[in-house]
Amino acid sequence: MRHPPVLEDRNVRQLLYTGRRTVGLTDAAVATPGPGQVRVDVAYTGICGTDLHIYHGDMDARVRPPAPIGHEMSGRVAAVGPGTSGWAPGDPVTVMPLQWCGTCPACRAGHETICQNLVFIGIDAPGSMQQSWVVPAGTLIRLPDSLPLRTAALVEPAAVAVHDVRRAQLTAGDTVVVVGGGPVGLLIAVTARQAGGDVLLVEPNAYRRSVAAKLGFAVSDPAASDVTAVVEDWTHGAGARVAFEVSGSAAGVGTAVDVLAVRGRLCLVAIHPVPRSVSLHRFFWRELTLVGARLYERADFERAVELVVDGTVPADALITHVMPLTEADLAFDTLDAGTGVMKVLIDCQA
Amino acid sequence: MRHPPVLEDRNVRQLLYTGRRTVGLTDAAVATPGPGQVRVDVAYTGICGTDLHIYHGDMDARVRPPAPIGHEMSGRVAAVGPGTSGWAPGDPVTVMPLQWCGTCPACRAGHETICQNLVFIGIDAPGSMQQSWVVPAGTLIRLPDSLPLRTAALVEPAAVAVHDVRRAQLTAGDTVVVVGGGPVGLLIAVTARQAGGDVLLVEPNAYRRSVAAKLGFAVSDPAASDVTAVVEDWTHGAGARVAFEVSGSAAGVGTAVDVLAVRGRLCLVAIHPVPRSVSLHRFFWRELTLVGARLYERADFERAVELVVDGTVPADALITHVMPLTEADLAFDTLDAGTGVMKVLIDCQA
Repeated sequence: MRHPPVLEDRNVRQLLYTGRRTVGLTDAAVATPGPGQVRVDVAYTGICGTDLHIYHGDMDARVRPPAPIGHEMSGRVAAVGPGTSGWAPGDPVTVMPLQWCGTCPACRAGHETICQNLVFIGIDAPGSMQQSWVVPAGTLIRLPDSLPLRTAALVEPAAVAVHDVRRAQLTAGDTVVVVGGGPVGLLIAVTARQAGGDVLLVEPNAYRRSVAAKLGFAVSDPAASDVTAVVEDWTHGAGARVAFEVSGSAAGVGTAVDVLAVRGRLCLVAIHPVPRSVSLHRFFWRELTLVGARLYERADFERAVELVVDGTVPADALITHVMPLTEADLAFDTLDAGTGVMKVLIDCQA
Repeated sequence: MRHPPVLEDRNVRQLLYTGRRTVGLTDAAVATPGPGQVRVDVAYTGICGTDLHIYHGDMDARVRPPAPIGHEMSGRVAAVGPGTSGWAPGDPVTVMPLQWCGTCPACRAGHETICQNLVFIGIDAPGSMQQSWVVPAGTLIRLPDSLPLRTAALVEPAAVAVHDVRRAQLTAGDTVVVVGGGPVGLLIAVTARQAGGDVLLVEPNAYRRSVAAKLGFAVSDPAASDVTAVVEDWTHGAGARVAFEVSGSAAGVGTAVDVLAVRGRLCLVAIHPVPRSVSLHRFFWRELTLVGARLYERADFERAVELVVDGTVPADALITHVMPLTEADLAFDTLDAGTGVMKVLIDCQA
């Protein structure tokens, strides 16, 4: 799918996942982009929950170390391969890190971004935690010149949130419960509010609740209150129109189902590696809908750029740490510790 | 919700559920319909899976014996209460056995048929296994004069199937897997086929498979084959666009999830009294949708009448037994035994 790289006589820094709980810097030769490719000088790369799973060694069957990972990025076009038009060095960009096969039944049905043979760049192919990254030109998303690249690293996770809100068919006036207040939960909350939703966020971590509360959201601590009763009161006995399960926990699934109104919609965002016990009777009785949401489409990225630019995405509240590539191990451990942290960016320029 | 009955000096037969695995005939005085009510001479009442649950004593907390049950019926208007227009004695009818409160949040949101205080007539109020039945005039559904009343007893379960197919947003050309080949599964299969679906039915019972096969459906025995592999082959690697879970079994849920294509839709029809283990990861990975389907709306009944009239509903294949009210205990036991049986009707005229 990718052309064999032609290497230049110049090295840059590259971070490698080298095995359970270890990452290490290496010097890698700069590659010349092939036909249809573009080389990007990476500015910032955020650490995603999936990157943390990889770091924990939980995805070694899919990501064989040593491997450069990362996909929440911003940067500038550095070089353009032959036959690639529309891009020039210096253009600010982010990347929609998907490559589909184009021939499987899902692709043929128009669902390319959930291709049955999808290559996720940063997991199944080399990622952006490096100074110089070669990607297919078709993955590039143009950024406005005025948008700081640090903030622009939030576009990819914001595109996830835009996709989730769209999958939930959220409309203005909907009561919305977001179960899980990490970066994606918070991005869903702001995106849902921007779409006219009235949002309550459920999160056991006090720091994360405080971030959400400062942003003006109603919050509920599932360890301290009966969330279903809280939502029942809040909605005058109706239940919520929409819930997002972003916690990845068994209890979160139960909460997201129990809070829903008749004909309510649950958007499943989190990864649940093991089957969960689900009250299907509740789905039957209230005619609920569950929709899975995995990634995003180009339109989601374009909307996400708008939401980052117009400040709907609260960059200052979300980006709690920015650390240089040379301290990437500390960056992973900081996110892993989970204390007073939301989004950790790696500054790949440093 | 119902007016206190004024009783006439004339008795008719009424079947009562009298406790676990017992029903008994009694003589009941004919009631005069009150304002807004109609008295119906019941012709036939089918025994529903829910009636069987009641018969087993599994719903004694909701249906306190002695209680007249039943709701899959056909009959003729016998008397019309004061202030009720549009109906005359002799009119052939069936009943949409729902009474909603009109004031709960679900009703106010336009979802009256999933009212949070719904009274299901035949479970929460006296049912149609009797010769003379008083119901609110608003529940009546007009039947064509030409439709035999025996066949017309299938309209209510057909309305369930119409609602299920609509909830699944099934469109022409969809590949469809129906998990469970009892009366409702078979009604869903014929309704889905009529809507342009290409249907495969999964059922462990050989007799039920043979009924489906005779009606021209592809069938699969989950005890003998790997249904997921069968569907994968059948759909050339895509998976099914739509699945219906009508089995009520844990294994059926797994099958209905596993057979689905990317962005496939699972319509949950069966009652699962206990939570089920569900692969939420599959919902995430393939962006699947699950929709619960409980009852029906008036439009579903009107469409069901058409499908019964035009022969889409295969009455001869479905109605395997018709037994008189005086042998109702045998009718219940016949359905319960499950051998060579699909739908059992009770002839309330006899």
